Amino acid sequence: MVRFDGRSENQIRKVKITLDYTKYAEGSVLIEMGETKVLCNASVEVGTPKFRPEGSGWVTAEYAMLPRSTHTRSRRDINSLKLSGRSAEIQRLIGRTLRSVVDFEALGEHTITVDCDVIQADGGTRTASITGALVALKLATRRMVEAGLISKDPVQGYAAAISVGVVDGVPMVDLCYAEDSNATVDMNVVLNEEGNIIEIQGTGEERPFTNEEYSKMLSLARRGIKKLINAQRKALGE
Amino acid sequence: MVRFDGRSENQIRKVKITLDYTKYAEGSVLIEMGETKVLCNASVEVGTPKFRPEGSGWVTAEYAMLPRSTHTRSRRDINSLKLSGRSAEIQRLIGRTLRSVVDFEALGEHTITVDCDVIQADGGTRTASITGALVALKLATRRMVEAGLISKDPVQGYAAAISVGVVDGVPMVDLCYAEDSNATVDMNVVLNEEGNIIEIQGTGEERPFTNEEYSKMLSLARRGIKKLINAQRKALGE
Amino acid sequence: MVRFDGRSENQIRKVKITLDYTKYAEGSVLIEMGETKVLCNASVEVGTPKFRPEGSGWVTAEYAMLPRSTHTRSRRDINSLKLSGRSAEIQRLIGRTLRSVVDFEALGEHTITVDCDVIQADGGTRTASITGALVALKLATRRMVEAGLISKDPVQGYAAAISVGVVDGVPMVDLCYAEDSNATVDMNVVLNEEGNIIEIQGTGEERPFTNEEYSKMLSLARRGIKKLINAQRKALGE
Amino acid sequence: MVRFDGRSENQIRKVKITLDYTKYAEGSVLIEMGETKVLCNASVEVGTPKFRPEGSGWVTAEYAMLPRSTHTRSRRDINSLKLSGRSAEIQRLIGRTLRSVVDFEALGEHTITVDCDVIQADGGTRTASITGALVALKLATRRMVEAGLISKDPVQGYAAAISVGVVDGVPMVDLCYAEDSNATVDMNVVLNEEGNIIEIQGTGEERPFTNEEYSKMLSLARRGIKKLINAQRKALGE
Amino acid sequence: MVRFDGRSENQIRKVKITLDYTKYAEGSVLIEMGETKVLCNASVEVGTPKFRPEGSGWVTAEYAMLPRSTHTRSRRDINSLKLSGRSAEIQRLIGRTLRSVVDFEALGEHTITVDCDVIQADGGTRTASITGALVALKLATRRMVEAGLISKDPVQGYAAAISVGVVDGVPMVDLCYAEDSNATVDMNVVLNEEGNIIEIQGTGEERPFTNEEYSKMLSLARRGIKKLINAQRKALGE
Amino acid sequence: MVRFDGRSENQIRKVKITLDYTKYAEGSVLIEMGETKVLCNASVEVGTPKFRPEGSGWVTAEYAMLPRSTHTRSRRDINSLKLSGRSAEIQRLIGRTLRSVVDFEALGEHTITVDCDVIQADGGTRTASITGALVALKLATRRMVEAGLISKDPVQGYAAAISVGVVDGVPMVDLCYAEDSNATVDMNVVLNEEGNIIEIQGTGEERPFTNEEYSKMLSLARRGIKKLINAQRKALGE
Repeated sequence: MVRFDGRSENQIRKVKITLDYTKYAEGSVLIEMGETKVLCNASVEVGTPKFRPEGSGWVTAEYAMLPRSTHTRSRRDINSLKLSGRSAEIQRLIGRTLRSVVDFEALGEHTITVDCDVIQADGGTRTASITGALVALKLATRRMVEAGLISKDPVQGYAAAISVGVVDGVPMVDLCYAEDSNATVDMNVVLNEEGNIIEIQGTGEERPFTNEEYSKMLSLARRGIKKLINAQRKALGE
Repeated sequence: MVRFDGRSENQIRKVKITLDYTKYAEGSVLIEMGETKVLCNASVEVGTPKFRPEGSGWVTAEYAMLPRSTHTRSRRDINSLKLSGRSAEIQRLIGRTLRSVVDFEALGEHTITVDCDVIQADGGTRTASITGALVALKLATRRMVEAGLISKDPVQGYAAAISVGVVDGVPMVDLCYAEDSNATVDMNVVLNEEGNIIEIQGTGEERPFTNEEYSKMLSLARRGIKKLINAQRKALGE
Repeated sequence: MVRFDGRSENQIRKVKITLDYTKYAEGSVLIEMGETKVLCNASVEVGTPKFRPEGSGWVTAEYAMLPRSTHTRSRRDINSLKLSGRSAEIQRLIGRTLRSVVDFEALGEHTITVDCDVIQADGGTRTASITGALVALKLATRRMVEAGLISKDPVQGYAAAISVGVVDGVPMVDLCYAEDSNATVDMNVVLNEEGNIIEIQGTGEERPFTNEEYSKMLSLARRGIKKLINAQRKALGE
Repeated sequence: MVRFDGRSENQIRKVKITLDYTKYAEGSVLIEMGETKVLCNASVEVGTPKFRPEGSGWVTAEYAMLPRSTHTRSRRDINSLKLSGRSAEIQRLIGRTLRSVVDFEALGEHTITVDCDVIQADGGTRTASITGALVALKLATRRMVEAGLISKDPVQGYAAAISVGVVDGVPMVDLCYAEDSNATVDMNVVLNEEGNIIEIQGTGEERPFTNEEYSKMLSLARRGIKKLINAQRKALGE
Repeated sequence: MVRFDGRSENQIRKVKITLDYTKYAEGSVLIEMGETKVLCNASVEVGTPKFRPEGSGWVTAEYAMLPRSTHTRSRRDINSLKLSGRSAEIQRLIGRTLRSVVDFEALGEHTITVDCDVIQADGGTRTASITGALVALKLATRRMVEAGLISKDPVQGYAAAISVGVVDGVPMVDLCYAEDSNATVDMNVVLNEEGNIIEIQGTGEERPFTNEEYSKMLSLARRGIKKLINAQRKALGE
Repeated sequence: MVRFDGRSENQIRKVKITLDYTKYAEGSVLIEMGETKVLCNASVEVGTPKFRPEGSGWVTAEYAMLPRSTHTRSRRDINSLKLSGRSAEIQRLIGRTLRSVVDFEALGEHTITVDCDVIQADGGTRTASITGALVALKLATRRMVEAGLISKDPVQGYAAAISVGVVDGVPMVDLCYAEDSNATVDMNVVLNEEGNIIEIQGTGEERPFTNEEYSKMLSLARRGIKKLINAQRKALGE
């Protein structure tokens, strides 16, 4: 089967990770997965929220789409005075994922906020955000080490995310918007370097799915994420 | 291993489903899973949101915790003028799950809103909400059929949800709060009667988890949900 | 004259006060006045708002109706981003009433917030809230004394509230919703054990009322509140 | 006993009602009760809110204090994004009172909004608002009749409001701020021309009060309101 | 050419500056420019916002229109939960202007907030606000010196504002509403005593304007502002 | 004098206008003025706001800065639930400017919203937004003509904006952030092709400025804008 954009089922889109896309953030990354483009900016601030124990850092994320990143313009959240439920859900997911790879003692009393702003959306913006945010985070902590702010890099290992789904009965990886909106099953997977699961979210959009489908989708995700982690390493020169 | 409250790993808490807990809602259910208590009220309204196609219905959910449903009092959302991100995430999950079992043509141009208000929280409020909301929904649609508003029940089959997790290295089902706050891995599973997956959300809270752990947790969930669906049937007299 | 639900003009509805309805609040009470059901949870926190003098405590209240506590579903405040004017008015009334029986020096630098959440509304929710909140408050302060947090109970005496009104020309006590919505005159009365007035709010809904009507309504209220204070005492085992 | 500002217990402050204080409103009134000054502007709009029956009008009120109408500056509501609970309570009271004297059939499908903006606050702003708002309302409806928009004046009779209270054990009428903040009992009374009660709100600020105190306060209010209604008539040239 | 209200092109409206219009504010001024009336109240508070350097004061302004200060009633900002963009723009302008004449060292750690509330709007409310706010500010700082709170007056010199515009091809000063809404070019000018520019904002409402038109408008503004500064001096008795 | 970044006083920064920076907007432009980068996306929608006359179109703008477009991260507006006053002011300016060059009859009943999102801020973001927004607008209307939606281009001629200021006593054009934050005088100028003034906003940040300084700044602005209009033409291939 040939997909919408000529890819095979197990082929991810062309990934491009541009470091230092903007100049002020401690870690700035533009990640492109095909036509999906997300700007991930990591900002380091001294101090942590009140709920954190002494001596320990914090990492959080915010996610938003520019009004015309999509086919039709969407209203800015500030105009309805409400953060969209979808954005709330996604930024919680990004934050949890980032925190899962951070040693908060090593980070010390710093807060790192990673802003994921979607410039252009063609499916998979939440997974692209995670993959890009991790690079921005690593860039920021590396500079903290270089600047002598902390003594060792608090980011422990790599992690990346990809979407998988079942479209027209066929499991496939890294869905673009056209595929995503026709998927009967939709799953977002975040794995670490060892292929272990950091986060998994599967939804039977049109019908429930079987554990066999789950297994096929997970294998596809595993292969795709391996490539993404390679791209992360390469971008960071490791 | 004996758990905190004397249960074995594969044992769910005592479930109690009380129908018609309040008298105005078209479907009213109090679900208790051990000490967790959620009031699920389904309200039927004529008409649907603008984004729905003609002749087709809609189902949505709202979720909130009463301020003192938890160990310490939490501020009402209205006082901070923001829906908590957690509530936003959960009510989207409940809504998606309910919609996955509804035939919108059969529902006709009606909107059913299921309000899940947590009276007392001892872990698993989102899964209890899903399990209770489905009963409230079925109660409401059954009455719509009886009243001649619609000709056939739009709710297709049963579905229920349970939490599973890994605590002290041991996979277990239906975590209470004390277990949940110590879980290294946490997963919420929604299955239908056939045991197929409607929604799955797994998080490596403290560390990534393996596919083997996933499989063990899914089996535990499957057994637990079977019991919950039995309780749903029994409550509804089917 | 026989009323809607069989009562005489001077007869209040069956009152039921359940202590410890939930398990986390320092004082938890479910009050039922006929079909009206309000959950009153008192939460104790250390510290007071800035505007309070040193060494002195504070008591406040919040009031809300669950979306489907009424005949038709009402929108949650958080969705319109505004506390309803009615709720604002009612929670100010409950707070004033509670504060009128508290010795703030004896309470010390603690804040007690009583949440009154209406589970089911059949008229008289504000007066039921007051009557129930006072029991929840007493429960909480009694436990503070038992725990040695304070040395004497800061709640001085009893107080309760009831609605009275004129329906079809007849003054009557404790109006249910069907009566309330047909009342030409509507009055809410809060009295202490001695029958003195803590708060009185009367409205000529359909026409102004005379001082004679006022006097008749006040006598009805006085008798009703005597019964309610007895119920409070009995519930608290005093 | 001589009061703070030289008045006797049963003496109201100098009342001054200036018509057409601003030039655009259909009815514009500046009411001064001693040092308390409230601008009451009645605006007529065609159409009514959805909840009104066909052929029937609506009257509503809004109340706000200018930031420096008081001893110390208060923050504008828009800066905290919340209507103050006190303003919410007061504008509901003003609206109810105005509606009690209006024949909605005679008003036809018009909405009249009376804005009560406090320029300077020296106690009794809510009662001054009511007394002034009624004149602004009458001014607006008189002009509607003159302009042929409606055939008869929908405002039926007069009504005015005054505060009464017990200060240092002495019942007195029309409390200024210095008295109000020392009152043990505080009551706001709205009466019509016949002296019947439209609205009554009494609070035992420092201690409960007896029915005898109530009666004394009501007599004081009745005499004061008679003078206010005379002032209203005179201002309107009736 | 004779203008709408009989003035010549270079004639400003009758200006009236009433000191101590309200009694609580440290500086209270009602400024009337023809039918435009703005109440300017300056409030002094101890302390400054966090962003200010130690030992240095702050001056800020807020601007709002009463709902019926205009031909048709406008909704209060609090009801839409949004400060109008126009008010935001204007209060930033007033604040910048006031700050341009203040020596913050001399003011010490005090914050002065000038509230400009429009009672009646007939064009030029923002420039009237500036002219009146400066008098209110001077009144407040003069009293601070008199009270010994500060040793020298931090307000350095005078400043006032006026609107100019091109209507029917004719440049004219101090536009009333009828003129303003027909202006092809509209400019607001703030000058100091020496006639130097503190702020200038020109808009080609209907068409771009030439530098020659700018020059003519600036001369008109300069003459008008000279008169306004005289009025300010006179009002302050200097 | 040599400036911070090597430019002469009358030299603007390198301007780069990239068309079709994103793929969904009807007109998408990335404008770069040195290190300042703004994404301007024009979205066309059928229909106009209620306040517009029949047969006539509307053009509006929104402006926002990405959280880390600046030296230190700023909070998103949605988190404080308030549009920043600065953004409100700027988007009103952009909107007015765009509307000044549009023939609304020719546009027909369409609304064009131009979103200006600042990717990186190094001074002059509001003027860069205007210059870029006009190109995005022209791109969108050109495509409307090509698509046959309208018969002639409603955008009449070119317009661009630049900042000018006085730094260390020297008037200069196109201030970067380091210059802007040291400017004693700051002016933003919007001119059309003929060099006439569409909008002018000058502020004496540190001291008032003379008309001579105004004239020098305007000449600098005129030369700079000529270059910007050339860049606009070239980018659009005209």
